[in-house]
Amino acid sequence: MNSPDTSSTAGKIMLVGLGPGSQEHLTGRARAAIAEAETVIGYVTYIRLVADLLDGKEVIKKSMTEELDRAIEAYERARAGKKVALIASGDAGVYGMAGPTFEVLFQAGWTPDSGIEVEIIPGASAINTCASLVGAPLTHDFCAISLSDLLTPWPTIARRLDAVAYADFVVALYNPKSGRRTRQVLEAQRIFLRHRDPQTPVAVVKSAFRPKQHIEYTTLEKMAEAEIGMLSTVLIGNSNTFVRDGLMITPRGYANKYAVEDGERNTHAGEQAGRSLSTGLSGWLEDVRARVAAGVSVADIARHDRLPEDYVAAALSVEGFEDEVPAAE
Amino acid sequence: MNSPDTSSTAGKIMLVGLGPGSQEHLTGRARAAIAEAETVIGYVTYIRLVADLLDGKEVIKKSMTEELDRAIEAYERARAGKKVALIASGDAGVYGMAGPTFEVLFQAGWTPDSGIEVEIIPGASAINTCASLVGAPLTHDFCAISLSDLLTPWPTIARRLDAVAYADFVVALYNPKSGRRTRQVLEAQRIFLRHRDPQTPVAVVKSAFRPKQHIEYTTLEKMAEAEIGMLSTVLIGNSNTFVRDGLMITPRGYANKYAVEDGERNTHAGEQAGRSLSTGLSGWLEDVRARVAAGVSVADIARHDRLPEDYVAAALSVEGFEDEVPAAE
Repeated sequence: MNSPDTSSTAGKIMLVGLGPGSQEHLTGRARAAIAEAETVIGYVTYIRLVADLLDGKEVIKKSMTEELDRAIEAYERARAGKKVALIASGDAGVYGMAGPTFEVLFQAGWTPDSGIEVEIIPGASAINTCASLVGAPLTHDFCAISLSDLLTPWPTIARRLDAVAYADFVVALYNPKSGRRTRQVLEAQRIFLRHRDPQTPVAVVKSAFRPKQHIEYTTLEKMAEAEIGMLSTVLIGNSNTFVRDGLMITPRGYANKYAVEDGERNTHAGEQAGRSLSTGLSGWLEDVRARVAAGVSVADIARHDRLPEDYVAAALSVEGFEDEVPAAE
Repeated sequence: MNSPDTSSTAGKIMLVGLGPGSQEHLTGRARAAIAEAETVIGYVTYIRLVADLLDGKEVIKKSMTEELDRAIEAYERARAGKKVALIASGDAGVYGMAGPTFEVLFQAGWTPDSGIEVEIIPGASAINTCASLVGAPLTHDFCAISLSDLLTPWPTIARRLDAVAYADFVVALYNPKSGRRTRQVLEAQRIFLRHRDPQTPVAVVKSAFRPKQHIEYTTLEKMAEAEIGMLSTVLIGNSNTFVRDGLMITPRGYANKYAVEDGERNTHAGEQAGRSLSTGLSGWLEDVRARVAAGVSVADIARHDRLPEDYVAAALSVEGFEDEVPAAE
């Protein structure tokens, strides 16, 4: 490794996630990074969002497909000793500039101790900001999938859609549609309908926290008829998600353990506050053992519980987790 | 619907996502919401993170398992006309207070036009903040799965782990372990190893952006030996994720389309900038048709492309997307 050149003023690359784009949702660190930067590079739309923070700075606007060019340009400036902010909406790491920037830097021979610092400033991603506007859809396990096939083969995308539709995730579709890419969202719908109720709630959020913000509630069955564009994120609920009074809610599962009546919280019979559910890992293992003892085959248990047979067999074969068995607690 | 009571000063509930917890990563809106609140409710740790912003406010500290109690208390205060901030680290919607709060409010007969406003203030979630510290792991499709079985049956969790391991997502494990729950992470590892290379990069991030921040890089094979606790998030890469110079990077897929040499970006033969990949949806459909024409069965194509047979057949049967066929562009 070469010794870093620290004789000149060190350049720096800051990857700044702006969050949804309204300035009140900027983090303090994102604002400070833009203030510190001598050069600000970003897609035209993002530059516009922070235009009033850019006085006296070199501003380089790039178009949508020039991610690698933006990274190359940032590195050239940083090598010349400049502090450079690469700005983008949402989180800088989510389908964002952070990945391509490191790839370009590595190809150019950069290392973390080469004297040019790289800082990533996190922000709320579209899945989070859109969710906050529709209610609470992300209270349970969730995924983000980009429907853009500009850099990803379709079978990869389709396989992922099928897996998470089956496993009942809440799903955010990023880049669902563009002028040219109109069929991907129909294919996504088709794949989801293999596993999910046609009435599954769907929200289409456009331009969250920006002047043209628009929210449309629909269902999986009617999803393809919704107005979906370049600036939309599509949120598909899981099997427990419901819409009530214009709010899309995914329950965390408190109802599995508690009943709330007259402002009082009571635990269901067989459940303990602060402990695993009776159907949690150790309870499930006990139940599997009981079924095996009763003569049920592992294959039938796997089919019933919708789990791979070899996984059920492997989980059964482990001993020595007595601390996990409710009876021992 | 009853007409809202707007005669008294209207109460308000603000669900505030603090982001990672260091104050410089607070959004302007989160800071303003705390300033506006007369009552601030939260888990002890979160209250401590913003202690110096709470002068003169009623502060209600709750323990970890009292989420529903916190929501009930917030609603009681809001009905008495108070502005209440319910604070939590990360994003307020991700496994967060937003869901249970709406559930409690609905049970109590609240509606959006009942005079008590509910505002959700998004923030960067642990998946985003931890990712920003390790490099750029979220440059491709990702999921969050909580390993906590306190409210979720284990078969649901296991099924989700298996699906996303198979479909090659980047995965963040939330709540991977606690004093009592030690086996879940071993089970997660076992399930991942059914589909993934034992050398798959894994990062364990503890207390991101807080004084006790700790990052450990490991592999899927050795994941269970890492120091994992209540304040850890585990990031598991996809099949393309690599670690170089202490940075965990998931490529976006630019290499599928471009080569960067000597600071120049060049498109591979057969690919076009700004257009779907040759293996994108329309290219894939053409290829499937060509294989069928050459006598390959749909079943064999499905097996080869690792997609459901009925999906391949259904996608093939659609006509009229000529705008998507590269030859027509």
